[in-house]
Amino acid sequence: MKQKKYLLLFIAFLQLSFFTYASNGYDLWLGYRQIENENLLNEYVNTLSYIHLEGDSETLKVTKKELIKGLMAMLGKNVPFKNLENSTNSLIVANSKKLSSSILEKVNDDLKELNKDGFIIKTIRIGKNKHTVITSNDDVGVLYGVFNFLRLMQQNKSITNLSIVDSPKLDVRMLNHWDNMDRTVERGFAGFSLWNWHTLPDYIDQRYIDYARANASIGINGTALTNVNANALVLTPHYLEKVKALADVFRPYGIKVYLTARFSAPIEIGGLDTADPLNADVQEWWNNKTKEIYDLIPDFGGFLVKANSEGQPGPQNYNRNHVDGANMMAKSLAPYKGIVMWRAFVYSEHDSTDRAKQAYSEFVPYDGQFLDNVIVQVKNGAIDFQPREPFHPMFGAMPKTPLMMEFQITKEYLGFATHLAFLPKLYEEVLSADTYRKGKGSTVAKVIDGSLHNKKLTGMAGVSNIGNDINWTGHPFGQADWYGFGRLAWNPHLSAESIADEWIRSTFSNDEKFIGPVKKMMLESREMVVNYMNPLGLHHIFDTGHHYGPGPWVGNLSRPEWNPVYYHKADENGIGFDRTETGSNALEQYAPELAAMWGNLDTCPEIDLLWFHHLAWDYTLKDGNTLWDGMALKYQKGVDDVQNMVTTWEAMKPYIDSQRHNQVSMLLKIQLKEAKWWRNACMLYFQTFSKMDFPEGMEKPDKTLEHYKSLKFPFAPGIRPRW
Amino acid sequence: MKQKKYLLLFIAFLQLSFFTYASNGYDLWLGYRQIENENLLNEYVNTLSYIHLEGDSETLKVTKKELIKGLMAMLGKNVPFKNLENSTNSLIVANSKKLSSSILEKVNDDLKELNKDGFIIKTIRIGKNKHTVITSNDDVGVLYGVFNFLRLMQQNKSITNLSIVDSPKLDVRMLNHWDNMDRTVERGFAGFSLWNWHTLPDYIDQRYIDYARANASIGINGTALTNVNANALVLTPHYLEKVKALADVFRPYGIKVYLTARFSAPIEIGGLDTADPLNADVQEWWNNKTKEIYDLIPDFGGFLVKANSEGQPGPQNYNRNHVDGANMMAKSLAPYKGIVMWRAFVYSEHDSTDRAKQAYSEFVPYDGQFLDNVIVQVKNGAIDFQPREPFHPMFGAMPKTPLMMEFQITKEYLGFATHLAFLPKLYEEVLSADTYRKGKGSTVAKVIDGSLHNKKLTGMAGVSNIGNDINWTGHPFGQADWYGFGRLAWNPHLSAESIADEWIRSTFSNDEKFIGPVKKMMLESREMVVNYMNPLGLHHIFDTGHHYGPGPWVGNLSRPEWNPVYYHKADENGIGFDRTETGSNALEQYAPELAAMWGNLDTCPEIDLLWFHHLAWDYTLKDGNTLWDGMALKYQKGVDDVQNMVTTWEAMKPYIDSQRHNQVSMLLKIQLKEAKWWRNACMLYFQTFSKMDFPEGMEKPDKTLEHYKSLKFPFAPGIRPRW
Repeated sequence: MKQKKYLLLFIAFLQLSFFTYASNGYDLWLGYRQIENENLLNEYVNTLSYIHLEGDSETLKVTKKELIKGLMAMLGKNVPFKNLENSTNSLIVANSKKLSSSILEKVNDDLKELNKDGFIIKTIRIGKNKHTVITSNDDVGVLYGVFNFLRLMQQNKSITNLSIVDSPKLDVRMLNHWDNMDRTVERGFAGFSLWNWHTLPDYIDQRYIDYARANASIGINGTALTNVNANALVLTPHYLEKVKALADVFRPYGIKVYLTARFSAPIEIGGLDTADPLNADVQEWWNNKTKEIYDLIPDFGGFLVKANSEGQPGPQNYNRNHVDGANMMAKSLAPYKGIVMWRAFVYSEHDSTDRAKQAYSEFVPYDGQFLDNVIVQVKNGAIDFQPREPFHPMFGAMPKTPLMMEFQITKEYLGFATHLAFLPKLYEEVLSADTYRKGKGSTVAKVIDGSLHNKKLTGMAGVSNIGNDINWTGHPFGQADWYGFGRLAWNPHLSAESIADEWIRSTFSNDEKFIGPVKKMMLESREMVVNYMNPLGLHHIFDTGHHYGPGPWVGNLSRPEWNPVYYHKADENGIGFDRTETGSNALEQYAPELAAMWGNLDTCPEIDLLWFHHLAWDYTLKDGNTLWDGMALKYQKGVDDVQNMVTTWEAMKPYIDSQRHNQVSMLLKIQLKEAKWWRNACMLYFQTFSKMDFPEGMEKPDKTLEHYKSLKFPFAPGIRPRW
Repeated sequence: MKQKKYLLLFIAFLQLSFFTYASNGYDLWLGYRQIENENLLNEYVNTLSYIHLEGDSETLKVTKKELIKGLMAMLGKNVPFKNLENSTNSLIVANSKKLSSSILEKVNDDLKELNKDGFIIKTIRIGKNKHTVITSNDDVGVLYGVFNFLRLMQQNKSITNLSIVDSPKLDVRMLNHWDNMDRTVERGFAGFSLWNWHTLPDYIDQRYIDYARANASIGINGTALTNVNANALVLTPHYLEKVKALADVFRPYGIKVYLTARFSAPIEIGGLDTADPLNADVQEWWNNKTKEIYDLIPDFGGFLVKANSEGQPGPQNYNRNHVDGANMMAKSLAPYKGIVMWRAFVYSEHDSTDRAKQAYSEFVPYDGQFLDNVIVQVKNGAIDFQPREPFHPMFGAMPKTPLMMEFQITKEYLGFATHLAFLPKLYEEVLSADTYRKGKGSTVAKVIDGSLHNKKLTGMAGVSNIGNDINWTGHPFGQADWYGFGRLAWNPHLSAESIADEWIRSTFSNDEKFIGPVKKMMLESREMVVNYMNPLGLHHIFDTGHHYGPGPWVGNLSRPEWNPVYYHKADENGIGFDRTETGSNALEQYAPELAAMWGNLDTCPEIDLLWFHHLAWDYTLKDGNTLWDGMALKYQKGVDDVQNMVTTWEAMKPYIDSQRHNQVSMLLKIQLKEAKWWRNACMLYFQTFSKMDFPEGMEKPDKTLEHYKSLKFPFAPGIRPRW
C-alpha cells in the first residue's frame, strides 16, 4: 500500500518532470513516459522481474543503457540485471550465438527467417516461468529488438505473449545531410549543422550520441555527413580525423558513415591536373585516398556522388560517362566492401528536351554496366521533390542496376520547417505506385527492396531535416517525417497510418482523444500543402533560389528549366505541361499501361492533370467545374483545411505539455498565413491569363499581384552559401 | 513522518531529474536545485509560508512566474499566493507604491536611497510575524529583487534577517550581439544567432523568453540585436515587425531593444543619394525612420553605430566628423528619449601613427561637443580585446562626454568557446585600473559609473558570447562570463572572486569541496591564457581573419596594422612595441603618473613590458632570466597551469552531473592541446630572430615551425561572412 503511494507520487513527479523539462522536444520519440495504467504497469513489472543480458560488445553496452533508461522512465524503477535463474519471469537479451540450447531451440526456426540485423521478440515458457527473449544473429539486431520492445511498451501494448520476427527489407537505410563545412545546411530549416567541425575530433557533443540513438531506434544504419554539393576538404587528413571521431560514436549503434566525394578532389586536394576517371593516376589517387579512409574507419560506408549535375564536376568534363565515373570509385571501394551511391539527378541547360525526361534518357542505356558495388540513387520524382510528382520513370526501368530511393525529408518545397505536412503519406504514395514493369503489382517498393528484379544491393536515402534546433527539426511534427522515413527504409511496405499512430503514441500520448484527431490531421496534411501550393499537377512554381513562397511569375533565370513559367506554361489558352505524344512525350518513359492511363484525359487522375496535360481554362473537370474554378477551389480547400487544423489543434491543449502545444499553435498560424499567400499570389497571377473571375467559394485576395511579386527574402534559410 | 518520507523521495526524484535532464546546461545559473540541508529547508519553508504579491503589470506577472518556478524547485512545494494576513510569516512582493503604510514606514528610508530599478529585500516584523519584503520604486526593480532573493536561497544563505538595499550603478547594461541577418555570428563560437528572423514575428521561440529571464536575473536591461557591421535591411518595415515581436517579449523583463544603424541606410533603403549628416533630407529620413520605429516599439532604446571604422560608411565619407554623425542621429532619437551609442573603435590605414593612439587622437578633441543623448562606446583597451591590454587612454580623458565601456564576452582572442578563461578577472583588472585623471583613485570604474566627472548617462556593453548551442555559450564556463559581465554592469566595483563564488553556487553546487578548487581554477584561468598566448605584453599575434591560433609570422596583409609583425616587431635585436618617447609615445595619452610608471623599465609591470618597450632578447627580467628565457618560461607556465586545471577538474567528477563534467573535461583537453600549439609555434618563430636555445624547463616543440605555419582553417567559426 505504502509502495503504491510512493509509486503514485513518483508518477506525479515524473509527469512534472515531463511537462517542465522534456517538453522542449529534444527527446524526440524516445521521451519515455511513466506508464499510467496501473494494470498495465503491473503486467510490465511482473513480466520483467529481471534482465539477463549476455555479451559485452560496444553495441550490447549501449543496448543495456537503453534498457535502463527506458525501463526506469516507464516503470519508475530499476529492473535488475542478473544471471538467468528459473524463479521468476525475465527479459533475456542476447545475440543468438550466446543463447543457451534450451532457449535457442524455441527460437531457432524464427532465427532462420531473419535477414541481416533482423530480430526476434518472443515470449517463451521454461518451467513455470515466462521469459521474453530479444535476440538476433547480429548484435545490432539485438539493439533494434530492444528499441522495438521499448516502443511496444511506450505504446502501452501487452508484452505477455509476444512473437515478433522482423527484419529490414533494405540494406542501406540512410540519411543524407546537405551540411556544409561552415555548418550552414543547404535546404536546412531547423537551425544549422549538428556537426561542429571546429571542435571535432576532441569534443564529442552529446547530440552526436543522441542522434545515433534516435536513428538506431528506427533502424537507420547510415549517414552521409556532407552536402552532395561537395567540398573536397572533407577528404583531407585534418577532416578525416574528425569524421573518424563521428564514426566511432556511431559504430555501436550500427550506423556507418559515408562521405560525399567531390569528383574533382584529385585536382583540388591531390595536386593532380586531371580528374579523368580513366587516368591511371586518378584511379590510384582514389585508391590511396580510400585506403587512407579505411585505415581510420574500417567500416566506412562509401561515397555519395553528385556529378555533372547543377554545376558539379564529373566524368563528362573529360568526355567520360557516369559509368566510367562511378566504376572508378567503385574499384577503389570494392576491397573494403564500400559502395558508391551515384546520383541520377541530372539535367542540362544544353538539352532542350523536357527536364523530366533527361535522367531516364541518360541513365537507362547504362543498365547493366555499373559494377556490383554501385547503386544509382534516384529521387522519387523526375523533377525535384515537389509536393506531388508521379514516381520517377527510372524505377523499374533498369532491371540490371540497383536503384536506391532518394526522398527529401527536409521540406524544401513543402513549407520549410513551419508547415505541418506529414511526409510518410507522400512516401507511401510513391512506394505503392505501380510501375507495371513486370505486370500489375510491380510497385516502386518492390523495385526498391530488390524483390522485383532480384537485386543484391538495396537502399533508401532521406535528405535530412535535422539541424541544431533544440528539438532537432524545428517543427515538432517534423520529427514524424524523420521517424517515418526510418520506418519506411526498414520496411517500404508499411502504411503511413500505422507510422503516424506509432509516432504519436511514442512522442505525445496514448490518449485516444488526442490520437484520433491528430492522426487524421497528419494524414490529411500533405494533401493540404499540395492544394494550397501546387494543385492538380502543377509543380515547381516556387520563388527563386530559396524556394520560399510562390513565384509562378518568374521567367528571367538563366537556365530555362529553372523558371516556374517553364513548368506551368500558363497562357491565354490554358495551363499545364503537355507530356503526352503531342508534347514532350515524357509518358513514353513509363510502362504502356501507365502511359495509356495518364495520357487519356478520361483516365488521368486529376491530381496529376497539369503534370501531363496543357488544358484550356474552361476545360471541364469531373465535378463539372471549369479548370479555372476547380483550381481556385483547390487553393481555397487547402486554406480551409489548414484553418481546420488550427481549430483541431486548439482542442488538443489538455492532452500534452504546453510548450509543444504552443509551438505547434504558432506554427499552424504561420502555415495558415502562408497558405493564403500562396492562394492569393497564384490565383492573381494565373488570372492575368485566364481573364476569368474568381468563383464563389474562393476568398478574394486582400492584396494585389504587384504586392506579392514585390516580396523579397534575401535571408530565407537554407540557401546554398556563396562562399 | 510520512510527509518527510515523501519529501526525501521528492528530493531523490528532483535530483534524478537534475542529473538526467537539466545537465545539458540550458538552465544556466537558474537551474534551481532542491535544498538538501534539512535545517535550511525548514528555515525557508517557515519563513515563506505564503506569498503576498501585489500588482498585475506584465513585469509582476513574470515576477510571479519566477517565484513559482524557483520556490517549487528549491522547496519541493508550491508556496501559496494570498492576501496579507497576520497569522504566519510571509513574503511580500510589491512596488513601493502598493505597500500598505505599516510596511512602507519600515522601508521608507531605504527606498529613498534607491536609484532607478534598485530594490530592497528586508525582513520586517509585524506583530509576532516576520515578513520578508521585496520592493522597489519600479516594477522591474521588484523583479530584480526577486531574482536576487532566489539567488540567495540557491546559494543556501539564511533569509531570516535580511536587509539588502541594492541599486544598479550604471544606466545602460547591455549586450551587443554581432549577429548577422543570415544567423551567422561574427566572432560567435556557440553556434548561430538566437534570432530566427525567418520565423519571426509569428513564432516566439521559448529561448527568447529564457534569454530575457537570464538577462533580467543579472540586471541586464538592453540588447542590441544586430552586428555593428550593420545591414540596413533591419530598418525596413519587414524586419521592424520582427524586432517589435522581440521587444514585446523582452519588455516585461525590463529589457530594451537597440539596433545597429548603418550610416548609409538613407541611400540603401531610403532612396536618397547621400547620407551626409548635415543634409536636411538625410536628417528628415532619420527622423521619420525613428518615428516609425517608436510607433512600433515605444520603449525602443536607440542606435548603436560603427562608423568610418574597418570599412563601414560614416560621416567622414562626406567630410563631416563623428560629432556631426552622432548628433544627427541623436536629434532623431531625443524626442523619444532614445540614445546613440557611437563607437570609438576607429583606426585608419591612412594614418601611420601607432594604431593604439588613433581613437584617442580623433575623439578627445570632440569632448563636450556631443549632444546629451550620445554616449561614446570605448573598448576596454586601445587595440582590440586582447588577452591583456592596458586600459584605453580615452577613459578619464573626456570629462564632458559620457563614455561607455565595451567589453568582449565572446572570446575572439582568448580561445573561442573551447578555452576556459574567466573573463570577469580581465574586466576587474580594467575597471580597477587607476587613470589618475583626478588624482589617485580615479579608477576606470569611476569613469564608467559617472562618479568621477558627474556624468548623467552611464553604461556598459558586452559583446555577446551567446549562440544557439543548447547551453547558450558552448563552453559551460562561458556562462560565467555572461553572468559576470551582467553583475559588473550592475556594479563595476564587484570583485571577480565574489562573482565566481555566486556563479559556481548557482550553477553547480554549494559543496565547498567543489567550490574551492573550481573557484581557484577560474580566477587563475585568464592569466593562463595570457601566458600561453601573449605573455609579457605581447599582443595581436593571432592568425588572420578568424584569429584562431597563433600567426606571429603573418606580415602580408594589405593594411600594415592588421599584421601581427606590426605588433610584436621582433627582429634580431629584440622584441616589443616601443610606445615610449623614443617610439610612438602612446604613453603621452595617459596621465603623467602612468606615463612615468610605464615608461620606466624599473617601474613598468612586466605583464605590460612588451606593450610599451622594445627590448633585447638578453634583457634581464626581475627574476634574473633573460627576456628570451623568461618568455619561454611564461609560455611553459601557461601550458603547465592548463595541465593542472585538467587534473583539478578530473577530481571534481563526484560533485556534479556527468554530462557537464564530461563536457568540460573534453574542452580542457582541447585547451591543453592548443596551449602547447601556441607555445610551440610562437617560440619556434621568435627563435628565428633570437637565435637562442630554448631554456631548460621549456618542453621542446614536437613539430617544426613550417608545420605550424602550414596550418589552415578556412572554416574556423565566427568569420564575417562574405555575402
